Amino acid sequence: MKAAAQTRETFRFPIRVYYEDTDAAGVVYYANYLRYMERTRTEWLGSLGFDLATFERGHGIAFVVHRVAIEYRLPARLGDRLDATLALVELRRVRMVALQQVWRDAEMLTDALVTVACIDRTTFRPARIPPMLHRRLEALA
Amino acid sequence: MKAAAQTRETFRFPIRVYYEDTDAAGVVYYANYLRYMERTRTEWLGSLGFDLATFERGHGIAFVVHRVAIEYRLPARLGDRLDATLALVELRRVRMVALQQVWRDAEMLTDALVTVACIDRTTFRPARIPPMLHRRLEALA
Amino acid sequence: MKAAAQTRETFRFPIRVYYEDTDAAGVVYYANYLRYMERTRTEWLGSLGFDLATFERGHGIAFVVHRVAIEYRLPARLGDRLDATLALVELRRVRMVALQQVWRDAEMLTDALVTVACIDRTTFRPARIPPMLHRRLEALA
Amino acid sequence: MKAAAQTRETFRFPIRVYYEDTDAAGVVYYANYLRYMERTRTEWLGSLGFDLATFERGHGIAFVVHRVAIEYRLPARLGDRLDATLALVELRRVRMVALQQVWRDAEMLTDALVTVACIDRTTFRPARIPPMLHRRLEALA
Repeated sequence: MKAAAQTRETFRFPIRVYYEDTDAAGVVYYANYLRYMERTRTEWLGSLGFDLATFERGHGIAFVVHRVAIEYRLPARLGDRLDATLALVELRRVRMVALQQVWRDAEMLTDALVTVACIDRTTFRPARIPPMLHRRLEALA
Repeated sequence: MKAAAQTRETFRFPIRVYYEDTDAAGVVYYANYLRYMERTRTEWLGSLGFDLATFERGHGIAFVVHRVAIEYRLPARLGDRLDATLALVELRRVRMVALQQVWRDAEMLTDALVTVACIDRTTFRPARIPPMLHRRLEALA
Repeated sequence: MKAAAQTRETFRFPIRVYYEDTDAAGVVYYANYLRYMERTRTEWLGSLGFDLATFERGHGIAFVVHRVAIEYRLPARLGDRLDATLALVELRRVRMVALQQVWRDAEMLTDALVTVACIDRTTFRPARIPPMLHRRLEALA
Repeated sequence: MKAAAQTRETFRFPIRVYYEDTDAAGVVYYANYLRYMERTRTEWLGSLGFDLATFERGHGIAFVVHRVAIEYRLPARLGDRLDATLALVELRRVRMVALQQVWRDAEMLTDALVTVACIDRTTFRPARIPPMLHRRLEALA
């Protein structure tokens, strides 16, 4: 799966580390990588032509994270310029799995598999990924 | 106004400083005092018998912060046990002003005047503070 | 492993959901469960007699999260009163694994295995868990 | 002072609103504007040729917020593309005041005066703004 992160299908989004991201150990606080990864998913969908907020409202759905398996390898620090990458590694009718990593130049700092489920905004029950997006994702996966 | 913080009408809520609250300077990140103050407002309303989430939904309103004037005097640090205090210093039909401070024992670390407005949840326009709460607050102000 | 969460060795810490914890989907933002879990680890060590900030400084070490496998089952909402639980499921010389869950009454909302490593504060390299703490943890695991 | 925000000396930095920024009221959580403003100060210094983290370490100083007077006029929402602006309105030996605003197109959402003090990183006592930066700022104020 990690190989996927090196292919041309990998989306890349720049992240700058500000004080807000760090903690008293002098490094990025561990929960904040999940914020970076959510930004990256939003920008990735945007790069495919889907504005997340508009799309979710328009289809009465929301994408929610169902599972994260994340490994913290090296710490990021104040002022770092990072790259967050995303590669779609699995696509189902109601969910998808993305490999999301955070890099500082050639060093991989964090590595995660994130399972995102599509739900109905009102009932919070699983819902099909809207077909126009699903077709666009199939072309990638 | 500061005298008010010493009277028996002052509400007090304990805060513990965790890694999540700190930044790379080794102290509590400045925006996080606003999180402490919002927790304190919620718990203060709770202490008066009003569960914020239920009350807002039930009356179709929301309380939103309109203005904050905050002074940072001394830094809080990882592991600190703080007290957040709140005293109502002004009450109008659609808004109120609270004096909110954060203390570490006898040291005042942060001092803020927070103006909270009542709005209609749907239109986001100003709305009267529901009478049952307004009467309860009048007894304090 | 999940059975361990039901034994008397499970630590339990109350969490209240405030506006700061929620997002525009009306539920607790996914990264914030990691903040809840870090608070819980700090309070758990405190309950064993170890003040985290003092202990880390005193021994020149820090505990850092190395890996998280988290599953989001049900959403928590504004105003919820939750219980965060922690059970130590594995103890090594330089790291430990905790089963951490978040409950609303009898409903398990979130379920995570969190691997925490002990590092040298200066070099950020693996370090032995200080013996006095390690012995205390052995009695639990 | 607000006029200053329209002059060519005003720095402008784009902000995108993600789920992490919003709360259950469907709008950006009030404390998060302070995060936006801190990012903007960092990028503003960067635009003047000073990398904040490197500069602070190199001079043994840190910039800390001493006072904020912020007014929340209109809410920002999920997916919004905002502009954060900064204009230096006062410069002293150990501190400066910035007018910081957040805009959505021609609408001003938030308006703040932020006093930033220069302190010694070790003692946390006031320190002079390093001359090379002070001179650069004088040219702006």
